[in-house]
Amino acid sequence: MQVALTAKFPLAGVSLMKTSAQVTASLKRRLGATVDVSEKGCWAASFDSSKISFLPEAVITPRREADIGVVLELANRHRVPVTVRGRGTTLMGSAAPVRGGWVVDMRRLKKIAIDADAGMAHVQAGAVTGAIQDAAAVHGWFYPPDPSSKAYCTIGGNIACNAGGMHGGKYGVTRDFIIALRGYLPTGELVEWGTATKKFAAGFNLRDLWIGSEGMLGIVTGAVLKLVPQPATRWTLLTSFPDETAALTAIKTLFRARVQPAICEFLDRESVLCAERATGKTVFPGQAGRPVILLELAGSVSEVDDLKLEVLAWAQAHALGFREARSREEAEELWAVRRKCSGAMFELGDAKLNEDIVVPMKNYEKFARYLAGLKKKSGLHIPTFGHLADGNLHVNIMYHRADAKDTKAAEAAVQNLMETVVRLGGAISGEHGIGLAKTPFLRIQHSPAQVRAMQAVKKALDPRDILNPGKMFQEVRIWKYQKLQVHLPWDHK
Amino acid sequence: MQVALTAKFPLAGVSLMKTSAQVTASLKRRLGATVDVSEKGCWAASFDSSKISFLPEAVITPRREADIGVVLELANRHRVPVTVRGRGTTLMGSAAPVRGGWVVDMRRLKKIAIDADAGMAHVQAGAVTGAIQDAAAVHGWFYPPDPSSKAYCTIGGNIACNAGGMHGGKYGVTRDFIIALRGYLPTGELVEWGTATKKFAAGFNLRDLWIGSEGMLGIVTGAVLKLVPQPATRWTLLTSFPDETAALTAIKTLFRARVQPAICEFLDRESVLCAERATGKTVFPGQAGRPVILLELAGSVSEVDDLKLEVLAWAQAHALGFREARSREEAEELWAVRRKCSGAMFELGDAKLNEDIVVPMKNYEKFARYLAGLKKKSGLHIPTFGHLADGNLHVNIMYHRADAKDTKAAEAAVQNLMETVVRLGGAISGEHGIGLAKTPFLRIQHSPAQVRAMQAVKKALDPRDILNPGKMFQEVRIWKYQKLQVHLPWDHK
Repeated sequence: MQVALTAKFPLAGVSLMKTSAQVTASLKRRLGATVDVSEKGCWAASFDSSKISFLPEAVITPRREADIGVVLELANRHRVPVTVRGRGTTLMGSAAPVRGGWVVDMRRLKKIAIDADAGMAHVQAGAVTGAIQDAAAVHGWFYPPDPSSKAYCTIGGNIACNAGGMHGGKYGVTRDFIIALRGYLPTGELVEWGTATKKFAAGFNLRDLWIGSEGMLGIVTGAVLKLVPQPATRWTLLTSFPDETAALTAIKTLFRARVQPAICEFLDRESVLCAERATGKTVFPGQAGRPVILLELAGSVSEVDDLKLEVLAWAQAHALGFREARSREEAEELWAVRRKCSGAMFELGDAKLNEDIVVPMKNYEKFARYLAGLKKKSGLHIPTFGHLADGNLHVNIMYHRADAKDTKAAEAAVQNLMETVVRLGGAISGEHGIGLAKTPFLRIQHSPAQVRAMQAVKKALDPRDILNPGKMFQEVRIWKYQKLQVHLPWDHK
Repeated sequence: MQVALTAKFPLAGVSLMKTSAQVTASLKRRLGATVDVSEKGCWAASFDSSKISFLPEAVITPRREADIGVVLELANRHRVPVTVRGRGTTLMGSAAPVRGGWVVDMRRLKKIAIDADAGMAHVQAGAVTGAIQDAAAVHGWFYPPDPSSKAYCTIGGNIACNAGGMHGGKYGVTRDFIIALRGYLPTGELVEWGTATKKFAAGFNLRDLWIGSEGMLGIVTGAVLKLVPQPATRWTLLTSFPDETAALTAIKTLFRARVQPAICEFLDRESVLCAERATGKTVFPGQAGRPVILLELAGSVSEVDDLKLEVLAWAQAHALGFREARSREEAEELWAVRRKCSGAMFELGDAKLNEDIVVPMKNYEKFARYLAGLKKKSGLHIPTFGHLADGNLHVNIMYHRADAKDTKAAEAAVQNLMETVVRLGGAISGEHGIGLAKTPFLRIQHSPAQVRAMQAVKKALDPRDILNPGKMFQEVRIWKYQKLQVHLPWDHK
């Protein structure tokens, strides 16, 4: 990565605040080498996966959690903006230091300890989600939330945006696995929300208020996570359907029978075509480009054996075709379809609006019909895939950035999409959060009274507005800004 | 119930505010017959299961959720205290209108609708928890949280105190089953936190901030609840142990093997003796007064069959004796032990401090030794039972109210208990909440910074302090006040 690539795009209405050099110098005296003011260091911390860069004035990479108290005490006194980053895998701009100031990089705070009796993990915020899963697995325990960036992203970032993943329908999202949090108020005071116990009913629940607050209400330094028994076995089935509506209607009969697959992924026709182009293979011979549902059962051997029969009977009755994986290798082959489709979409356009919307189950078919209409009306490719057990669909609006008509159509499509999902009783984000990218849609989801209540909470807990300022409430159309041309380790291809 | 029994005990430091008769008259003009200002009506709403009475000036029993908006708009304008009640089963005084004003009684808002596809229940706040379970069961779904008062208590009350129950260890508590909330801000504005979807990552999470906030931040009128598949079968096993420490050590070996019983109830020696006196039977012939653990497995037939073998092998290796229930009737007989013990404790004293503390699993044995010492030192009977899968133990400090020495010993014991559980990394309440009864202990659990943050949130969301004022933060020693001599439907005996 070259500093020469730096690009700064002060966003409309987001004013960059200049921190006095003395304050940063004073921080450096207190914390020494953990404070980096180099151009290269600041550039590397200037953007997340949204790839829009805002230079901070220092990057602090603490070795001890208490360092964060020192940073905040000073920042609060001098009104220095503080933005926390895990690895910066978020696509929403949530970790971009839009107002400059200081970035706190959590990468060194990554301890993981498993309590094998209680089925809990005690972790620091910089621990990588995949590493937590691995550590738990050693003791036969399982941490289910699995954002697609789990090999890179940190649990602190997952907590900040309430990350989900493919296991959300059966097991739940990050929030459902947080037992306690430890961290700092903007004043630099240490706080603990909850104890390492599954029950806690003492006082207001600021633990869950912090979860999903995108670093705007406090800084999480440690967490206690709930684990579940590692499933003894898994079984994978790929099913195809004549069209999207048929697939969505069919899956509801399985849910109504209370069969809960560990994973239940849907790929629409366009997503399948992307995957087929990328792999050079037809998913079902003679059935090219049919929408598919990929199911995985997980549990004890007898549990999976029982459910397998139910699922096969369901596939027989409702699917056009189905292929059972008879080995781990065959399962991997089926999963390849799901994994390849996202990267392959860039053949349909050089820009993607990836919207992680959520639709209530009762409106699945309505939404499928709406989406077919939107594709037709906008003239755009909008491959859509996602998690059917929780209604969290990734709608990928593809367009060519250089084409003004295309761009206009994409902007109109995303606005219409957001209005529609809310009208259908759904949500504008299921697992990404708001950051900068979803700010134009927050007020579609939330009434003025709701936004006022959120802002009142922000003012109560961060009265000097130092924690990740400029996010969530201020409208920014992030797609209008030029992206850095950098390749990140978790980028597709 | 006789109005003649009314007893008012203004608590130290809690000042009763007098609402002007015109404001209540104005409310009556707006809402008509739903507003009751009769002496009898006000008396009936003047206390909860803590049985300490504070007369309100009106009781509103809305027929429509929107009525609550009307109540709050007026109350906020004129600073009238508003206290919500479900059935008033709480022991904590959380539903007692300590500052007078208006009580909102939710009993008429009790609609329940099951979404059998999505596995969700759409309910109004006044719906009785047991009725929700029954409605879900019709469709093969299960709502696990089960406070012991579930035949009477409302889901709104469960949400207010984040109620738990016996299923907490495996399934979770009320919070874990709340998908979305609907309700009113103190301004009378309608708000919705979350959608009827399992994923939601849009904006600050005020849903979970409301849960457990004891009606102090907003009034819940409706909720969407998550359901899980109804277990096909259940299996019960009663095990006995030589002493408490042996029982607690033994159970950890089962948890370490990742066996998750649906229910795992512990009764110490004193609780067993209470049950044995009440039933006139010895739990294990020849083993009178041994501590027991009552286990229930739940799930599919094959799942329970598998786990049963593991549990029986564990019992063989660790228990002094064990009795498997071979029929539903035999299971009922085993459960009778658990159910009888609580009421039977009143043979040990006419007053009980029932403390629902939580201890982390790693400190189970330390806590058992501490409790043995406390019983000895205080000279009191302290029968203890509770939920071992989540460490939520009910410590019942029994004493004779008329005996000054006894009372002093009980007060010292409860203070020492709270300090000890927090020192052991646990919580002062697992499922009851703070209300009035736990206010002397809040600051043992929470640091000054934590309490300040909570109070800042209260001030931000309820700036005129009209919602359930006088609770949580103001220290009140509730046991010093005389209780009403009334028998409530859910009282023991």
